[in-house]
Amino acid sequence: MVNKKRVIQFKTPVYVEERGTAVGPKEGSGPLGHGFDYVFPSLLCGEKDWQTAEKKMTEKAITYCLHKQRLKDNHLDLFIAGDLTNQSTVSSQIARNLHVPFIGSYSACATAIENCIVAGMWINGGGARHVLCASSSHIGGCEKQFRFPIEFAQQKPDTAQTTVTGAGAIILGRHQSMIQMTEGLLGKVIDLGINNPYELGAAMAPAAADTLLTYLQETEQKPSDFDLILTGDLARSGSEIFKKLLREHGVIVSENYDDCGVMMYGTNQQVLAGGSGAGCCATVVFGHIFNEILANRLKRVLVIATGALHSANTVQQHKTIPCIAHAVVFERRGN
Amino acid sequence: MVNKKRVIQFKTPVYVEERGTAVGPKEGSGPLGHGFDYVFPSLLCGEKDWQTAEKKMTEKAITYCLHKQRLKDNHLDLFIAGDLTNQSTVSSQIARNLHVPFIGSYSACATAIENCIVAGMWINGGGARHVLCASSSHIGGCEKQFRFPIEFAQQKPDTAQTTVTGAGAIILGRHQSMIQMTEGLLGKVIDLGINNPYELGAAMAPAAADTLLTYLQETEQKPSDFDLILTGDLARSGSEIFKKLLREHGVIVSENYDDCGVMMYGTNQQVLAGGSGAGCCATVVFGHIFNEILANRLKRVLVIATGALHSANTVQQHKTIPCIAHAVVFERRGN
Repeated sequence: MVNKKRVIQFKTPVYVEERGTAVGPKEGSGPLGHGFDYVFPSLLCGEKDWQTAEKKMTEKAITYCLHKQRLKDNHLDLFIAGDLTNQSTVSSQIARNLHVPFIGSYSACATAIENCIVAGMWINGGGARHVLCASSSHIGGCEKQFRFPIEFAQQKPDTAQTTVTGAGAIILGRHQSMIQMTEGLLGKVIDLGINNPYELGAAMAPAAADTLLTYLQETEQKPSDFDLILTGDLARSGSEIFKKLLREHGVIVSENYDDCGVMMYGTNQQVLAGGSGAGCCATVVFGHIFNEILANRLKRVLVIATGALHSANTVQQHKTIPCIAHAVVFERRGN
Repeated sequence: MVNKKRVIQFKTPVYVEERGTAVGPKEGSGPLGHGFDYVFPSLLCGEKDWQTAEKKMTEKAITYCLHKQRLKDNHLDLFIAGDLTNQSTVSSQIARNLHVPFIGSYSACATAIENCIVAGMWINGGGARHVLCASSSHIGGCEKQFRFPIEFAQQKPDTAQTTVTGAGAIILGRHQSMIQMTEGLLGKVIDLGINNPYELGAAMAPAAADTLLTYLQETEQKPSDFDLILTGDLARSGSEIFKKLLREHGVIVSENYDDCGVMMYGTNQQVLAGGSGAGCCATVVFGHIFNEILANRLKRVLVIATGALHSANTVQQHKTIPCIAHAVVFERRGN
């Protein structure tokens, strides 16, 4: 018999041994700015191109991870990383300097959580004790590659999202800590026919709803069992569609629901519908949310990271956008 | 204490439940052509663009997998896939039609074997019973994206490789079969400073040598313990460098060594140094090599898939090419 249950319960406990975050100036001056480890004062991070800037930012996040934990990279068993640049070269170039076995991943803006789930399974399967995961995005690199260079100052509709300039790193492992990753759920790809890359929130909302409904059904839990249900980066328009889709299934999420793309920026910041990018969920969760868990203001958080699996090429071909949402549960351990 | 051993021994046995391969006309008319499940008579596979052709080819390989096994996709617990298109959209579009939890992977031409190792760990960790993995490449899509459209008929040096038009799919799981995947080794990223994308064999050879030397050292085996040691796609020039690097460490591989990129094409075919691409190792191993194992002409094969983790962008920036090599052992079970 095939076990049809999709929710993975990590039998060997998986802990957040350490995390590090680095962001750009706009993210640093937003409402969560104080919770990041490092804020770069300029988008170029002292480099000459966006890609090298993103690499420097991710290396900064990883350095915070390793220094805080007093781990050297030779204590790591595995490095899992992915980003939005073509062929994920930011991650590969970082892997070159780490000298650690490397898994390249790609799940668009859901990459950080795909990485966590794969790391968790690796630890449960006995293949690793300490796994470093990283993911990132940079508005300069993303706009140039997916749309137009930012210097072009392209006009966009209100439903468009702003790519978060940020990198998040996390070490998951067997050393007990205050934050445990208890469960994971890999999403299925869902595509309800949206082909407009300025409507990514609407495109991704059905995948997020499917993942949440599957999780609640399989575990026989309800939204109120969590202090916070957090979607990856549906942003303002996508979050409303997400809540509406859930209501159609009789599931209400309201007070204990938020979205990383909404939380990242203040209402006074010009970001259209909110944030997105592989660095969005990574920095909000590994920064602000983990701070809240450590401060005992949150005890149990369900993170549903969303990703739009399109490219500049598929947009030009007017293809519809396949979307995915992966979920994990982070819980506070101890008092 | 951290276990520094990098070789993964799959404690829960992992079997090749099924495999499927589909290739383009040049690969079909090569010396391994009879061993593939399906040969498309034209590069466009009846479609209007290279990307859709690659998708159709991969779907064909997956269909062979599922039909031979009489499995429906709802028996699958997980789909792991990656390809060389920007943002790996060929794989994502296939995932959309499969309705199976999806992990997106990226390891350039080593993607097929990265997928196998992740699948094996998933099965060992208790997260899945049947995992479908796929990877692919298409000369039309790759040349357009990484270099110039093939219509441009660009001249290249003899060390350049020809992208294999091919897709390989495999179902790994717990159902006992004649072929078992017994061990895996994830590579470290190695970059000795080559930045010429027409020298990928030379760029990747050090990573392949590092992976083989690590494997032999950790397991205290010698090359003659295998019927075949097979590199992914070093092609002719890279294979010679690989053998030379090994000789410097006192390790001789000769009679029982071959390379997928060399094996794929005949000496009468115009392919420069040989084949490459995420579909190269996938089709040669899942097609020809598994046929040889089933026919009892090979019993124990070490596959070292190689990948060059560059992009068109990093080439334009004259950045050096980070390379990786992942290894797995496939063994015949039964008589």
